[in-house]
Amino acid sequence: MKDQPIGVFDSGIGGLTVFKEIMEILPNESLIYLGDTARVPYGTRSKQIIKKFSLELAQFLIKKKVKFLVVSCNTISAVAIPAIKKISPVFVLGVINPAAKQAAITTRNNKIGVIGTSMTVKSLIYPQKIKKFLPEAKVFTEACPLFVPLVEEGLIDHFATWQIAKEYLKNFKSKGIDTLILGCTHYPLIKEIVRDVVGEDVIIVDSARPTALELKRILEANNLLTVKSDPKYEIYVTDAPERVYKIADLFFGNNLPVKPKKVTL
Amino acid sequence: MKDQPIGVFDSGIGGLTVFKEIMEILPNESLIYLGDTARVPYGTRSKQIIKKFSLELAQFLIKKKVKFLVVSCNTISAVAIPAIKKISPVFVLGVINPAAKQAAITTRNNKIGVIGTSMTVKSLIYPQKIKKFLPEAKVFTEACPLFVPLVEEGLIDHFATWQIAKEYLKNFKSKGIDTLILGCTHYPLIKEIVRDVVGEDVIIVDSARPTALELKRILEANNLLTVKSDPKYEIYVTDAPERVYKIADLFFGNNLPVKPKKVTL
Repeated sequence: MKDQPIGVFDSGIGGLTVFKEIMEILPNESLIYLGDTARVPYGTRSKQIIKKFSLELAQFLIKKKVKFLVVSCNTISAVAIPAIKKISPVFVLGVINPAAKQAAITTRNNKIGVIGTSMTVKSLIYPQKIKKFLPEAKVFTEACPLFVPLVEEGLIDHFATWQIAKEYLKNFKSKGIDTLILGCTHYPLIKEIVRDVVGEDVIIVDSARPTALELKRILEANNLLTVKSDPKYEIYVTDAPERVYKIADLFFGNNLPVKPKKVTL
Repeated sequence: MKDQPIGVFDSGIGGLTVFKEIMEILPNESLIYLGDTARVPYGTRSKQIIKKFSLELAQFLIKKKVKFLVVSCNTISAVAIPAIKKISPVFVLGVINPAAKQAAITTRNNKIGVIGTSMTVKSLIYPQKIKKFLPEAKVFTEACPLFVPLVEEGLIDHFATWQIAKEYLKNFKSKGIDTLILGCTHYPLIKEIVRDVVGEDVIIVDSARPTALELKRILEANNLLTVKSDPKYEIYVTDAPERVYKIADLFFGNNLPVKPKKVTL
């Protein structure tokens, strides 16, 4: 069991930011990534269909005999974790709990902002989870549906993105937040624009590192760390593996450790 | 056969602009619309997966015994018409031929611009079809991948959309086009921004009306017009029918004739 790979899955390729953090923090672990590039994005779809698609992704990794399931997508984490836990024989960790915990630790004035896809914001999961760690927290949320396509089209330092960010984030100023959660794996790529708009004093939290650290903690606590040191990496997508390989450096910083392969779910 | 409905299908709900034109031009015909809202958008996916999804949509309507298939999506029309024709027992009409023909008639200087999704532009189908009608045409194309999410988020008269349009369309000025095809059903919604950027002298052609007129011509020529006058309308989507009903007026101008129902393909 210990030497089985960890499964990481996502609506698309944004979760490669989480995959990369896990590679860095747990360099001995084998990893399998699955991204649903045939049906991305999930953030504007219904809860029902997001659950259906997510269970199909989880099943694929369960069949690969992973020892742990990491849900690297905020939208899936927001609505499908209970359903995934129900079918999973192994631990399931989403990105929301770790990010919520990190923000609860970071804030000094208990005023926390959260941005994410329409579904993540609508689910109200961030306020709920943050208050579990910090009951006196005041949480303000804002959906930023255009950030994903803007990032995917590479407009990460474009004037139009800044313009749209200014509108999405305008309410945070008057709320006096001191911490802002980037509740979507695409948003770290426009962190500088977000920082410029919300101001230097606001601490920005993204989910990749807290999730990788939480994963490590759980593996250690349950004696599930691998004893080997020759990690293997596999990356699967449901459409256009060549395109993923080409644009992955946007999220991954450099070339992927292996070429993505196409699978049908 | 004559009194069977006409099937109209699309990657999402943009094709409702075509549906509406057909309702106006053929007011006696019964219509069934199918939009794949669970997997929209198609424009950035691979040819292979677009064909697969399109055949699933076509099969659904064929089982409903439609007398005619209208492909109201430019992306599907660009890559999947031959595959759909192969499985269809009835006529298949896409939006590209009618729009190409219209542009060939409209141009005076034979210089035509085309904008569309990445896949529609990459397919090179517009230059090919336009030259069939007007061999001396010079066709210039530009992919505008952000227009669809900008329209779907309602930024149809937003400064950021204008900014992005200015960049996408900047090359057309020096080419001296006198006609521009809006090669995507979402684009008519930002026609005013496009017109402002390319200039008042450029004639803008969109595919909805030419397609409805071409459909009428083929039905007449093949003696397929209904003899009844009590049209029935059905609208199906693969996700979030309530949301579709709410935002459809964006494309439809007013309320849909019936509430959309959800189907699983």
